[in-house]
Amino acid sequence: MNIAILGFGTVGQGIYRVLEDRRSALEGQCGQELCVKRILVRDLQKDRGAFSASSLPLTDSFKEILDDDSIEVVFEVMSDGPQGTEYVRQMLARGKHVISANKAAIAGAFFELQETARAAGVHFRFEAAAAGGIPLIDPLGKIRHLNTISYLGGIINSSTNYILSELSLEKPRDEVFAEALTLGVLEDDPTNDVEGYDARRKIAILASMILAQEINEMDIPTIGISRLSEEDFVWAGSEKRRLKLIAAMRQDDAFYQLSVLPTALPETDSLANVGGIMNQVQLKGDIIGSLVFSGTGGGMLSTAHGLWTDFLDVICSRPGYYSNVGKIKADHSMERIAEFYLREAGKSPGEIKKISVKEALNLNNKGFTIIEIA
Amino acid sequence: MNIAILGFGTVGQGIYRVLEDRRSALEGQCGQELCVKRILVRDLQKDRGAFSASSLPLTDSFKEILDDDSIEVVFEVMSDGPQGTEYVRQMLARGKHVISANKAAIAGAFFELQETARAAGVHFRFEAAAAGGIPLIDPLGKIRHLNTISYLGGIINSSTNYILSELSLEKPRDEVFAEALTLGVLEDDPTNDVEGYDARRKIAILASMILAQEINEMDIPTIGISRLSEEDFVWAGSEKRRLKLIAAMRQDDAFYQLSVLPTALPETDSLANVGGIMNQVQLKGDIIGSLVFSGTGGGMLSTAHGLWTDFLDVICSRPGYYSNVGKIKADHSMERIAEFYLREAGKSPGEIKKISVKEALNLNNKGFTIIEIA
Repeated sequence: MNIAILGFGTVGQGIYRVLEDRRSALEGQCGQELCVKRILVRDLQKDRGAFSASSLPLTDSFKEILDDDSIEVVFEVMSDGPQGTEYVRQMLARGKHVISANKAAIAGAFFELQETARAAGVHFRFEAAAAGGIPLIDPLGKIRHLNTISYLGGIINSSTNYILSELSLEKPRDEVFAEALTLGVLEDDPTNDVEGYDARRKIAILASMILAQEINEMDIPTIGISRLSEEDFVWAGSEKRRLKLIAAMRQDDAFYQLSVLPTALPETDSLANVGGIMNQVQLKGDIIGSLVFSGTGGGMLSTAHGLWTDFLDVICSRPGYYSNVGKIKADHSMERIAEFYLREAGKSPGEIKKISVKEALNLNNKGFTIIEIA
Repeated sequence: MNIAILGFGTVGQGIYRVLEDRRSALEGQCGQELCVKRILVRDLQKDRGAFSASSLPLTDSFKEILDDDSIEVVFEVMSDGPQGTEYVRQMLARGKHVISANKAAIAGAFFELQETARAAGVHFRFEAAAAGGIPLIDPLGKIRHLNTISYLGGIINSSTNYILSELSLEKPRDEVFAEALTLGVLEDDPTNDVEGYDARRKIAILASMILAQEINEMDIPTIGISRLSEEDFVWAGSEKRRLKLIAAMRQDDAFYQLSVLPTALPETDSLANVGGIMNQVQLKGDIIGSLVFSGTGGGMLSTAHGLWTDFLDVICSRPGYYSNVGKIKADHSMERIAEFYLREAGKSPGEIKKISVKEALNLNNKGFTIIEIA
């Protein structure tokens, strides 16, 4: 069986390495040899680090992959959203199974891609798009049919959780960010992670699946961690709380409310104790009760692991699709009332007030540091 | 689609209730109406509590179900092990999909039942047999192909975890056991839970899957919680530890070692904080890293949830089977050395020694209270 990989950054390299490492087990399940026939990259001349570029089947032509009917399964792990969506759409339409971890490509076109896959009778899978290696999407695909899910949320961005964990140890901010870059925990442009956009995309995908309706990530009130400063960590410590970036979907009567917010959690809360690049997702359903999934959220091997579990489903199951038929609508009024710690720019200490998420966003726009108190 | 339920205790009733509650979602996925055509019980006259017996399609004839070719899917949730195995074997051979939560039926005949299902081309699924509602078996089915799993273990018996949680609050032993019976957490005959046999069966099933070899539950060194007394909880508290019943599979060089042992865990350990009827399973793999699954381990609805997620897989995936091809053997020499708290019957306090699991078992046979120190 011929496969292709679109993108050869950290995750693309992980896919390649896991295949090399687990070839016999994967081929045993597949019942045939597995061959990485093409790897799409932007720059054929770029140094590929541990890999010898000449030993890799690199190409800079997407069309070459699209037109190659011998390629049955494509791993899409690019970073560009709109281009990713376009490539996935074309490959599905051409009858190729697609396994993607590209949140930006999926979040904006969830049901359109589902329909394209359905029409072509192929798999479109994305286990690694929400919490890296944690098996979350596949179980949720079943859990959503059996439960009214009143809460789904937690820590789903590894980079910010690493940074918050380090900052809570009173390390200097510059040092923490520099280390995160060196370790590969943070990308050269950290905006997507630090401003909460990555977490916003992930909760948009999870909510789209569960609520069976397209959730536009731009409708989700989102505050990142860029404004949290030393004094905020000192405040949290004095309250026996820890600061985490929490993405959540909550049921409130007839509506669901979504948000991505810096949150001060009691030290005894299980989420408060998720350190480093670990992720944790909590779920409450009326039949299943409470469920918690924890594991490595990002990183080369764990993300590649999520993609390969999708591959195992592609080769031994029938394709399944999500439909846009949800009745309980998401509420974008941002009227949920919560307790917030609010600190005006350049001033200290902050104050605690019960306000709506909408008011909190307004104050954020005015330069306030905003932390929800959970 | 016609289904049957074998056994109408707590879990059987849960299966029936979840169908009533989620009928439209389940029928939507199934694409046809779902009908519980037969429910096998021992005593047709027994009071069925909240259910009116006359409204239920009860039968005491297994043959009636076996011979009814219109019944496609059977939920097997009896408590009898050998009879469960025999019924499952016959139903699979007759081409019926079987979904079982009967640990005692599965643990002794894992690969035989796999082969019977494979020969007949039907599903044999058992998601609810190991950790109730926690989605564990299905993800493990994929994770095992992609990892060398060096550790799998945790709290997988809800009854004993409830009892240990209550006892650690210094409640009197008799009161705790009486409450557990009233709440339905403990069965009338608590031996299977309290002596660790239920946990032993579950870890035997998980290890059989992962190691791809038949694990005989009788080969697993097992000590239950029946000997733990007030002074042991006082000792654990003084050491800032909590007592839990831990079932585990550990890789030690070329072998795997299994055990079910009362264990004193540091208060800060995530397993130490799993209270009441909750379960938690931890896993370490070389590719996926650390994973933790937590949720409600037993109980009517969460176990029924696990069985219905299997049903969703039966109706929309191809059957998959486990094979008996494992190369890294389980080691039953019990030579693993660990630190144990050992207390002679009637004496106090105990002492701490580094000994082998085999020596600990020997001392247990001589009446000692045994607690592994993790």
